[in-house]
Amino acid sequence: MLEALLNTDTVKWAEMPKEEKNGIVVSSRVRLARDLKQVPFPHRLNAETGEACVKLLEQAWQSCQVQLPQFEWKNPEELTDEEKQLLLEKRMITPKFAENAKKWERLLVKEDGSLSVLCNEEDHLRIQCMLPGLALEECLREANQLDDCLEQVLDYAFDERFGYLTACPTDVGTGMRASILLHLPAIRMSGQLSKVVQNMSQLGLNMHGLYGDGTKAFGNLYQISNQITIGQSEKEICSFLETVAGQLVEQEKQLREDLKQKNPYPFIDRITRANGLLRNAYMLDAAEALSLLSDLRLGVDMGIIEEIPTSVINQMTLLSNPGHLQRKAGRKLSAIEKDNLRAKFIQEKLSVAKTS
Amino acid sequence: MLEALLNTDTVKWAEMPKEEKNGIVVSSRVRLARDLKQVPFPHRLNAETGEACVKLLEQAWQSCQVQLPQFEWKNPEELTDEEKQLLLEKRMITPKFAENAKKWERLLVKEDGSLSVLCNEEDHLRIQCMLPGLALEECLREANQLDDCLEQVLDYAFDERFGYLTACPTDVGTGMRASILLHLPAIRMSGQLSKVVQNMSQLGLNMHGLYGDGTKAFGNLYQISNQITIGQSEKEICSFLETVAGQLVEQEKQLREDLKQKNPYPFIDRITRANGLLRNAYMLDAAEALSLLSDLRLGVDMGIIEEIPTSVINQMTLLSNPGHLQRKAGRKLSAIEKDNLRAKFIQEKLSVAKTS
Repeated sequence: MLEALLNTDTVKWAEMPKEEKNGIVVSSRVRLARDLKQVPFPHRLNAETGEACVKLLEQAWQSCQVQLPQFEWKNPEELTDEEKQLLLEKRMITPKFAENAKKWERLLVKEDGSLSVLCNEEDHLRIQCMLPGLALEECLREANQLDDCLEQVLDYAFDERFGYLTACPTDVGTGMRASILLHLPAIRMSGQLSKVVQNMSQLGLNMHGLYGDGTKAFGNLYQISNQITIGQSEKEICSFLETVAGQLVEQEKQLREDLKQKNPYPFIDRITRANGLLRNAYMLDAAEALSLLSDLRLGVDMGIIEEIPTSVINQMTLLSNPGHLQRKAGRKLSAIEKDNLRAKFIQEKLSVAKTS
Repeated sequence: MLEALLNTDTVKWAEMPKEEKNGIVVSSRVRLARDLKQVPFPHRLNAETGEACVKLLEQAWQSCQVQLPQFEWKNPEELTDEEKQLLLEKRMITPKFAENAKKWERLLVKEDGSLSVLCNEEDHLRIQCMLPGLALEECLREANQLDDCLEQVLDYAFDERFGYLTACPTDVGTGMRASILLHLPAIRMSGQLSKVVQNMSQLGLNMHGLYGDGTKAFGNLYQISNQITIGQSEKEICSFLETVAGQLVEQEKQLREDLKQKNPYPFIDRITRANGLLRNAYMLDAAEALSLLSDLRLGVDMGIIEEIPTSVINQMTLLSNPGHLQRKAGRKLSAIEKDNLRAKFIQEKLSVAKTS
């Protein structure tokens, strides 16, 4: 089941339905942190207490199996480094889990990759749901469904006044971190990014790159997420985040038009060249591929080049990463082979998209 | 007649027959310098003697009309600056004639542009024939045919010991300058160009760019020509030049293979990118277009990209020049429009070549 997911070039959040045209909002994500009463927080677990905690969690999951049949329970020791890299690139696990999972950490994962639970990583449970487009409410509903199911068996650390008690005090309350992934090339090109980041901070929101805190925003993909988890309901937080995302979308759209109006020739040239290079280059390194894919995404959104489904652009973005590249190639690749196959695989995706 | 030639994107020397596959030798050229006895050399002509000389030359041409019907006699005053620019880009006139033709200068031209005669420019007559591929003998034959015809009427300055007497002493003897235009990207990329230029000089040959002495070799196109016009027959000079050209072709081929063997990935990448940019860019400046067309020519020769007829590549090279671009557009263009239409016209040529 997990095997099937690992063998695809995609994951649920990347599969934007064809009829949805909003190319600026890529995906939505909700993550709930939950911890057990009377069990030490994960960073204080040892071999013995860790093992006991895992048993509790596994039993809870087994009791949910009837309601949630498409889930798989995985010990990270059963996963190769390559498989962990794939899950990381699909945004289903954290770098910490990929690199250094302890014996008592586990992964619970839904077959389409939309839901995953990290057990005994930062918290006893980190339940995460990711879906394409603007869909925080649905993410929250799905995460809650799994959460409710587990809560029937598990005894969560919960305080009437503070809410959920979590390993890190910044998660106390709802334990929820919601985020929206946006494609914002015009905000960056116009030099307005640092101002936007500052604005987000004033609104109590974080802004960072595709792969979480402190990561570079390859391909002009940025996430916004809530800093504050207490004093507001989950729905209020999600609703506020979607409102802000909507404003960013409007700002991005306006700046795209401004850029095009002000200097149409170089603007269009940048996009047509990206299209030509993606369809023809014999070698593409990851940074160039992601940058060209950003230009392509922009060009499709603005109708400058022919329609390419967003899901295909997302797949090409995933395929630009080393793990996906190596999996598709089926063998260890040298640096030069990686660049060559990255170009080849992207061209295959584009030529199929053209005729479909 | 001249009008028809000016309205095409091509000229005889650019029209390599489809069955000929040697992409390294672009074209051949023979030029004969002839001067009249008892008439001052052109730089010493004045309004009166110039007018008298023109009459002599025009009468001679009229007496040849039955034998050579496809020729037109043109006063440069009847040509616009744009038309002179077109003839210059087709290599049928010199920059001097284009910019600063005197009242008594004339142009005699064959309708396909293969033969042209500059009257009273550097010499009383400069008869030139240019043909595609390696064809010096045929160029010489055609130039001689016109020369013989004119000589039946005109009295050439000829000395039994020195041969033809010309305005510039470096042309005395045969009065012939033969040249071959070659595409030598691998010699340049391998850093061997200056050594080759030195070798040519030791062999009594000159090497320079597409548009004559001192011009930059845009698009890796280089001409070799004889320095010495005396002491050897026309046929000997042509034959020697073709032998040297053959050696350059072999050297170029070997270096192409070496470059490809040594670093196949970046070598192929360079070519596929050029193909992608030529087919997709929204703007191309002249220098970039010529450089990409050179990579395309190389890629076609080496079978790295699909077959494109040499004549189409030559047409795109001609179209990269400002005069051809403006003529095809049919109006004055701003710099940015030039770059845009250059890209557009090249794409049209390429898309037709693809389906044919």
